[in-house]
Amino acid sequence: MVVIFSSDSLPDEARRLLGKWSLAEGKTDAIPEAEVLMVWRIDEDMLSSAKKLRAIQTFSAGVDHLPFKLIPPGVKVFSNAGAYSRPVAEHAWALILHLAKGINIRDNAIASDYPRQLFGKRLLVLGAGGIGQETAKLGKAFGMFTVGISRHPAPREGFDLVAGLDELNHELALADVVVVALPLNKYSVGLLNSSRIALLKDTCILVNVGRGAVVDQEAIFDALKERRTLRFGTDVWWDEGGREGSHLPFYDLPNFAGTPHIAGGAGKETANVAKIAAARNVATFLETGRANNEVNFADYLRNRATPCYKSGRPNIAHENRL
Amino acid sequence: MVVIFSSDSLPDEARRLLGKWSLAEGKTDAIPEAEVLMVWRIDEDMLSSAKKLRAIQTFSAGVDHLPFKLIPPGVKVFSNAGAYSRPVAEHAWALILHLAKGINIRDNAIASDYPRQLFGKRLLVLGAGGIGQETAKLGKAFGMFTVGISRHPAPREGFDLVAGLDELNHELALADVVVVALPLNKYSVGLLNSSRIALLKDTCILVNVGRGAVVDQEAIFDALKERRTLRFGTDVWWDEGGREGSHLPFYDLPNFAGTPHIAGGAGKETANVAKIAAARNVATFLETGRANNEVNFADYLRNRATPCYKSGRPNIAHENRL
Repeated sequence: MVVIFSSDSLPDEARRLLGKWSLAEGKTDAIPEAEVLMVWRIDEDMLSSAKKLRAIQTFSAGVDHLPFKLIPPGVKVFSNAGAYSRPVAEHAWALILHLAKGINIRDNAIASDYPRQLFGKRLLVLGAGGIGQETAKLGKAFGMFTVGISRHPAPREGFDLVAGLDELNHELALADVVVVALPLNKYSVGLLNSSRIALLKDTCILVNVGRGAVVDQEAIFDALKERRTLRFGTDVWWDEGGREGSHLPFYDLPNFAGTPHIAGGAGKETANVAKIAAARNVATFLETGRANNEVNFADYLRNRATPCYKSGRPNIAHENRL
Repeated sequence: MVVIFSSDSLPDEARRLLGKWSLAEGKTDAIPEAEVLMVWRIDEDMLSSAKKLRAIQTFSAGVDHLPFKLIPPGVKVFSNAGAYSRPVAEHAWALILHLAKGINIRDNAIASDYPRQLFGKRLLVLGAGGIGQETAKLGKAFGMFTVGISRHPAPREGFDLVAGLDELNHELALADVVVVALPLNKYSVGLLNSSRIALLKDTCILVNVGRGAVVDQEAIFDALKERRTLRFGTDVWWDEGGREGSHLPFYDLPNFAGTPHIAGGAGKETANVAKIAAARNVATFLETGRANNEVNFADYLRNRATPCYKSGRPNIAHENRL
């Protein structure tokens, strides 16, 4: 009987979906027999003991932290892309609106000039996947013109326009709000560098809910210092020696808003939704040999800038200054 | 020729709408001849010198600050209800999402448990007018079940259900998010008192973009201290000796978010939208003798709790603690 190892305990609905097979939740002694590993992250020890391994299904949407070079040939990797689209799109909008309206600014003179209306403005979303699409749909509800940037541009619900990467610079200069909803891979790392950040309007609101390293850390910090009407919010941070964080004091800037990589974790219900999505995909793989979100190793393999964060929340500079 | 006095200069589109009449912008010596006053607020001197007065059109959506007892019989008052619906609904959502997701909470332990998903939850809007309806429409986009409370319940776009005041207590106990979008009058003052606040779920998010005095100041402050998972955000404040503010240190509470009555002022574009709406209503009045948003004095006259704020932004307790 096929053995599935899951590093986490699963909700009942996920267990039901995997009921035909032998499911070992949290029992690492089952790894040598496991054909499928359901995990957040994976290390060399786990890979070397999983002798029967056919597939890895991550609970996370991003797979940039996986050690692709250590994964044996023939083992498929499936991400959990799309499983967090709703909570992360809600979070993107929390950052957008916080920066547009100026919550908890108690200085009346600053607060009075702070609010910007979103209705009628232009929203640019980098990445037209699940999170990007949910973010764009909400943009339509706020009365915005929505543009997506995708490596594979095609009309998608929620977007008035989906353009290719060759349109990126043009669109960055037109946007009132830019949301980064890209995975981190060799195409996206450092995409928003200093020259592209320089293209943004002075009144642009930039929000990152993808991965920190898509935005150049020093470049955005310097831009926020120099252009005080530019506003930046992020839930995702950079690789600081294997930990997700920043060595720059972003929270000291008045035109910054942040959260410590919590967008996907909006309560137990969102975690369960993600685990059920992962289980459904594993069931599809075991029944058909194919499944959604198969990762192309070539997108990641040669990308030396891809970080491999350790577990835990971001280590943010000046964290003592709550 | 009919003379219209406007306390503010008007955008070109508003001037065009009033082109048939004599428009005096900012020229107070025109008040004795004026049949219509377009104003934010009005005092005894202005009223006593306006001998030909037929109508007052406010730029503000609320009229709770007007001295109704001083307005001569036969003079109609028109509010600017609906003119700020979009920016104020955006602002309501900025407060909702800030409180749902926990922006700028830098303590990882607190932040990790903070986010709540809105999708699938129940949104209750007190007031089904322009602001309430825009707020509810956005609630539908976020996948919420939307309920409105109105003195005149009837089906309205954006609401899954509109109920009467007799359903208020029942609905308060069911809601995950409550938005106050009511004008301040004898029906709404103190509506959310300590016994109604006690009905709210422990995990409820309460947001006020109507008028401060709809919510009992001491009652909500005490509830936030006692029930740390209850969350409250407000753009509007209380009458503190004729100034809008609070004597209580709301900003010291971790489950509070605030802004100093800036929701309607999201840039020059929103001010212009409001002035154009006021001008359109004045033109309608002068052409037909009737117009939208005619105020029923009886809703306000006997309401001794109605504050009359002086100009300026709220005076918030502990304002030095930015």
